[in-house]
Amino acid sequence: MVLFFEVIRVDEAIDIIRTITPRLDLETVPLLESLGRVTASDITSSEDIPGFRRSIKDGYAVRSQDIRTASEVSPAILKKLRPTTMGFQNEARTINEGECMYIPTGAELPVGADAVVMVEYTEGAGPRVVITKSVKPNENVLLPDEDFRIGERLIQQGTTISPREIGVLAASGVFSVPVIRKPVIGIISTGIELVETTANPRRGEVRDVNSWVIAAFLTEHGGTPKMYGIVRDDPEEGYSVLSRALDECDAVLISGGSSKDTKDITASVITRLGKILAHGLALAPGKPTIIGTCRGKPVIGVPGHPSSTYIVLNVLATPMIAQFSGTTRFRPATGYGTLQENITSERGREEWFRVARSGDTITPLPGKSGLVRTLVESDGFIRIPQDREGVEAGEGVEVIYW
Amino acid sequence: MVLFFEVIRVDEAIDIIRTITPRLDLETVPLLESLGRVTASDITSSEDIPGFRRSIKDGYAVRSQDIRTASEVSPAILKKLRPTTMGFQNEARTINEGECMYIPTGAELPVGADAVVMVEYTEGAGPRVVITKSVKPNENVLLPDEDFRIGERLIQQGTTISPREIGVLAASGVFSVPVIRKPVIGIISTGIELVETTANPRRGEVRDVNSWVIAAFLTEHGGTPKMYGIVRDDPEEGYSVLSRALDECDAVLISGGSSKDTKDITASVITRLGKILAHGLALAPGKPTIIGTCRGKPVIGVPGHPSSTYIVLNVLATPMIAQFSGTTRFRPATGYGTLQENITSERGREEWFRVARSGDTITPLPGKSGLVRTLVESDGFIRIPQDREGVEAGEGVEVIYW
Repeated sequence: MVLFFEVIRVDEAIDIIRTITPRLDLETVPLLESLGRVTASDITSSEDIPGFRRSIKDGYAVRSQDIRTASEVSPAILKKLRPTTMGFQNEARTINEGECMYIPTGAELPVGADAVVMVEYTEGAGPRVVITKSVKPNENVLLPDEDFRIGERLIQQGTTISPREIGVLAASGVFSVPVIRKPVIGIISTGIELVETTANPRRGEVRDVNSWVIAAFLTEHGGTPKMYGIVRDDPEEGYSVLSRALDECDAVLISGGSSKDTKDITASVITRLGKILAHGLALAPGKPTIIGTCRGKPVIGVPGHPSSTYIVLNVLATPMIAQFSGTTRFRPATGYGTLQENITSERGREEWFRVARSGDTITPLPGKSGLVRTLVESDGFIRIPQDREGVEAGEGVEVIYW
Repeated sequence: MVLFFEVIRVDEAIDIIRTITPRLDLETVPLLESLGRVTASDITSSEDIPGFRRSIKDGYAVRSQDIRTASEVSPAILKKLRPTTMGFQNEARTINEGECMYIPTGAELPVGADAVVMVEYTEGAGPRVVITKSVKPNENVLLPDEDFRIGERLIQQGTTISPREIGVLAASGVFSVPVIRKPVIGIISTGIELVETTANPRRGEVRDVNSWVIAAFLTEHGGTPKMYGIVRDDPEEGYSVLSRALDECDAVLISGGSSKDTKDITASVITRLGKILAHGLALAPGKPTIIGTCRGKPVIGVPGHPSSTYIVLNVLATPMIAQFSGTTRFRPATGYGTLQENITSERGREEWFRVARSGDTITPLPGKSGLVRTLVESDGFIRIPQDREGVEAGEGVEVIYW
């Protein structure tokens, strides 16, 4: 009655899932609720960030040329201007030749200043400051558009929003975020031996486990599960429940009833409401899997054994949810690669160094610490233990992903 | 005014956090809501699971001794009993010498039968079944207490509930789960230059980013954030906001105001309401971190730069949340180790093999596919590509964690 397809490879099955799963439409949610959601469009900056020249250290704003020869043996001495009470808004303040002004981390540079000398390299008794180190122009300074330029893309479409993206959005004043609607996925358990979880099974009966495993898995992976309970062995009941689930959901998972013996229920119901595209996966466990499409929506028949179900969810439900939302990146949590540039680290402290990874290549991102950008540009970090002084280019390193 | 402590190592800081963070009390939640929560006690099985001898294949229930010499060249021939209409409850059925009965996957074995021959090794026209393969006693059968024994521990206290634990709980009829209450963690941002995210910053002002990064991080890691907004430079305001947060929360994170220049706000407010245990971490970025305790609750001062904050959250907030809930296991998402036993795999299909990991040692868990137990006993899986026939003991393998 039902055509038994050839067993197909996992990658072929995933391709089929991608083909039959439509991108969902967008909705707008408040900033914190966007955590874990997928961006529906590129989000661009409506302003330069930070928008002004900003110190990233506590120290003295200076004209770098005034102290270009300063050193411990031959310090420069500058006249100290009184800082503003607030200390941060210095638009109206000007530094002339031979002058400097104390500003804290995060403060705006006064007009005329082009760098900041860290307070550690100064001695500031009285109206004069002794400076023991030269600085380059823009040293310890963020330029007005150094984090993001107006019109520049902050976050790419298809990005799953982590706390790091939340930070970038907050920095840019985006407190209403366009994300893809969560897929609602129906769950039907089939099996003549099944009883509800709340029941006391008689001999020969077992509680429905798969509905719960699937619901929890979908929740964890960004779907909204909708449970339709147990269908025993009545094809008419199966038809009416699947039909209702298709009305109310974006996709349906049917557990059990997909092996040879009991194939009729799942396969025949899918055939009645749509068509079967694959029946049988080259995967162990997980072989008795059905992929179908009904009314333009994916319907997957997963095996009845919970542990097999769990594998098939990992293999097929994950890319299905990703396809619904247009996610572009999957990232494992740790990976190995070859470091492209030396990293130096101070012995005696543990250093967590932000890096980007591309294939086998790990590139350190030294970005100034005041940048928000490195939150999203980095893929993770490498950890340099406190008894090491660094890692050399060419060494193998482990990246711990965010 | 404030005592500046020696910079301490990361592991020392984590030890301090553990010492000052109390275990929270338990609450009971419905099964699906327990996802991601931490169990407050061991959960034990109130029954044997599956509770009866259960077939894990479609096939014929037999007395193994009747077919002990069966092979393709010399098959055994058994008398076929009529299966029950339901096919599953076979308590009242008996198989005598020379008899067999068809049962589907999941069904109870009839009395007298001690094994199941897969349907693939049988030909069953008419009243006789030709069997071409012998089976051992209990082959393709789950024993009544093989998944879990009555009184046995299903899930250990301190386990973070994943979809796999949900499956075990559903199988056992546990639909109300004792979990640790989520910690409510207050967030205060300090900084004279900060404005609300919804504001349009003037020159020299920036939006508060850290409150959002911290709130999202806490949410992602199982906490409930409570945002108290921005405290600028008024110590009295800082005192009253921290005091209120301590009344309403289990811990408080204060962002900014912890570096040398602006130390007064965070350090002095903590000192007024409790005491500082550490000021300065041997970590880059993240050095200007304060750990304190006020009214028996941990208070952490994190750096003002969002990217430094994010590191410190990873270093200190994660173990704090774990300590609140008594979590015992941290698991990275992939790891490498040495396989302890050969695994054979069929060429032409991809195999995902459940394994347990202990340090460097990866042990395959062949567990029968009908067991729910392997869901929680396994740490993850190794993936054998379809062009390989297995992996040998002693080989290095990558485990992908659940």
